[in-house]
Amino acid sequence: MTLAEEMTELARQAKAASRSLAALSSDDKNRALLAMADALESNGQRIQEANTQDMQTAAGMELSPAMQDRLKLNEKRITKMAEGLREVAALPDPVGHVLEERTRPNDLKLQKISTPIGVIVIIYESRPNVTADAAGLCFKSGNATILRGGKEALQSNQIIAEIMVNAAKEKVPAFPEYAIQVVPTSDREVVPTLLSLTEYVDLCIPRGGEGLIRAVAEASKVPVIKHYKGVCHVYVDRDANLEMAESITLNAKLQRSSVCNAAETLLVDEAIAPKFLPDIVDRLLEQNVTLRLDQRTREFLPNVGERAEDATEEDWTTEYNDLVLAVRTVHGLSEAIDHINQYGSAHSDSIVTGDEARARQFLNQVDSAAVYWNASTRFTDGAEFGMGAEIGISTDKIGARGPMGLEELTSYKWIGIGSGQLRT
Amino acid sequence: MTLAEEMTELARQAKAASRSLAALSSDDKNRALLAMADALESNGQRIQEANTQDMQTAAGMELSPAMQDRLKLNEKRITKMAEGLREVAALPDPVGHVLEERTRPNDLKLQKISTPIGVIVIIYESRPNVTADAAGLCFKSGNATILRGGKEALQSNQIIAEIMVNAAKEKVPAFPEYAIQVVPTSDREVVPTLLSLTEYVDLCIPRGGEGLIRAVAEASKVPVIKHYKGVCHVYVDRDANLEMAESITLNAKLQRSSVCNAAETLLVDEAIAPKFLPDIVDRLLEQNVTLRLDQRTREFLPNVGERAEDATEEDWTTEYNDLVLAVRTVHGLSEAIDHINQYGSAHSDSIVTGDEARARQFLNQVDSAAVYWNASTRFTDGAEFGMGAEIGISTDKIGARGPMGLEELTSYKWIGIGSGQLRT
Repeated sequence: MTLAEEMTELARQAKAASRSLAALSSDDKNRALLAMADALESNGQRIQEANTQDMQTAAGMELSPAMQDRLKLNEKRITKMAEGLREVAALPDPVGHVLEERTRPNDLKLQKISTPIGVIVIIYESRPNVTADAAGLCFKSGNATILRGGKEALQSNQIIAEIMVNAAKEKVPAFPEYAIQVVPTSDREVVPTLLSLTEYVDLCIPRGGEGLIRAVAEASKVPVIKHYKGVCHVYVDRDANLEMAESITLNAKLQRSSVCNAAETLLVDEAIAPKFLPDIVDRLLEQNVTLRLDQRTREFLPNVGERAEDATEEDWTTEYNDLVLAVRTVHGLSEAIDHINQYGSAHSDSIVTGDEARARQFLNQVDSAAVYWNASTRFTDGAEFGMGAEIGISTDKIGARGPMGLEELTSYKWIGIGSGQLRT
Repeated sequence: MTLAEEMTELARQAKAASRSLAALSSDDKNRALLAMADALESNGQRIQEANTQDMQTAAGMELSPAMQDRLKLNEKRITKMAEGLREVAALPDPVGHVLEERTRPNDLKLQKISTPIGVIVIIYESRPNVTADAAGLCFKSGNATILRGGKEALQSNQIIAEIMVNAAKEKVPAFPEYAIQVVPTSDREVVPTLLSLTEYVDLCIPRGGEGLIRAVAEASKVPVIKHYKGVCHVYVDRDANLEMAESITLNAKLQRSSVCNAAETLLVDEAIAPKFLPDIVDRLLEQNVTLRLDQRTREFLPNVGERAEDATEEDWTTEYNDLVLAVRTVHGLSEAIDHINQYGSAHSDSIVTGDEARARQFLNQVDSAAVYWNASTRFTDGAEFGMGAEIGISTDKIGARGPMGLEELTSYKWIGIGSGQLRT
């Protein structure tokens, strides 16, 4: 079989499985998820053996130590995967909800009902735990998954999927075995080939660095839901409580600087700059944050000198994922909004102010997936939003936007219930 | 300027306009729509002059008489465009609705709010009335539109947009003039160029024949919402009321055979075939419907002979848009569902039955945008669904599915309202 034939067959089987999944009861889905969780734990040894093979391959691949660490599966991480599946089992089934209901003048009753999407391709890098997490969320929402992880994690990903499928089949005979499939080859042509199969594949969710995601979006003929990066802003308005502004800035930058909802740029209203900037800059420098200041900001900081760097145009669009923060002083709210809409990544942005009118203007006009008033940008997260779990975050506007939990893995259909209605 | 530069500038202006649109009040939007409607009527003469030029160009283009008819704008059609805009003005504003609300344990209040999508490219064929209809719906939902009609309608489309924009600007000074733009050239490279501008364009909605839509979907790097075709089914179950089954079949096929929600295939449960087929076939033949029968169907119709044709595999996937109907006898419900999921276009499908359990199975398992129980497939339509107006119908599963009215032209954002919340 050629690669194209092999991928077509895999996708066709996934589509067929998705039809059977749509008919599984919530109970059956939950029993299968719990069986999968138990099986991952009881087969921890097998998983670690496969993972050791991957680690050996990776050692020859010049992966960074951080990538190698992400690849590793120890007992604790296996338990965490199992717990994740149990949490998903405990969440409400997102399928079959009546989202809207209306009866037309001709007595035709219309219901808008949540449905699975169908077949979802997940493309990701080294962490093999994504295999269990993503497959679990997709399965609970009635979707078949095709998982395409990194070459370096192939053995781990395959054994995880195999254990999950076998445990589910044993517990729930109606479980369709092609509901969860790991692409069995690391051929580079897999991605463009799979993502051209619009007849079978309904959605692709890529997870990883900006390079991976841009390559997937560029290659795909099927819809892709994604975020390229998180260039998030905290804007400190003239009416901000300065203590709150300081703690939100520090939290947004420092609580976990390597993630997409961490702040990368601090915008300060010039009316408050003389009061706010000296203190916050000292706090950030104390925490070893490298600062990149625009010229206006420097004017309010006569003593900062070489303790801070100068910002360039490039800084405004950069996701540092590190202890670096760009700082810009703006001439009020409109300039802040324009800056965010022009340079930001439409991910998560926050205003700190005591003035409701200006807060509302910010919340309305900043065109981002999540906008905050007097709260840290770090809250953009499925668990923090009460979704229970998250498969990713979207900055797209078609389909899900913001954190994606189970509901965001559904589509809908219209059901019309009549008694012989004809169109006239 | 190269074409790429010209299209980039046009899309950039549309994006800027979409920011201003998001800040317009519902009142301002409605006043602008009413002013546009009045202006179309009072400038009917100018529109007809431009349309006459288009008709002359079209005469040299070997357009079919049907295409030429669709291109024509007379007083009645201009009035109809104006009335359409007034109806859109009367509909509720779909933007700014609180779709969900929750307060987290840390007292962070989260709201999911409907927002405009941003910039929408509409690609369509001859009917210039689409210019006013689509621009009006997009404008009301806060979106900027870039309209790309057929070469044969360029003068008509340009004058319609110009009249709408000028009327809106005069009535509502905050109306952003680039909110509605007609692509001023008929260069074939416009479509791939525009649809590569992912930074500015949020969505493309193509309207027209399957060829146009496939070409757009193939070329596009931005999300496309579409339906390729409507291969719709009526399935007559063993427990159907046969009189109802007959009237639904006739309505679904004949009430307007040229449209996407008309039935193209009749599926009949073999248990009811001897009772149902002879009568329905006579009725359809009386109405000059060409029938394409499978072999099992023929066995129940010993007298039909050459009055009907034989179906081939190709018939099951064909949208006739004409007085032609394929007929297949199936071995019960599961075979009907499988047939529809395999050969259908996921548009609109109906079961006629008195048995609720089988109806529910059909409604759940047929994976189409609209599924009916004891009603005609012809109801899949924005106006029939109570949406007031429709920009198109989607068979996609990411974003809108089924008829697309104003709500289906929105996205959402998450708003987090706090009092200094930090993530711990």
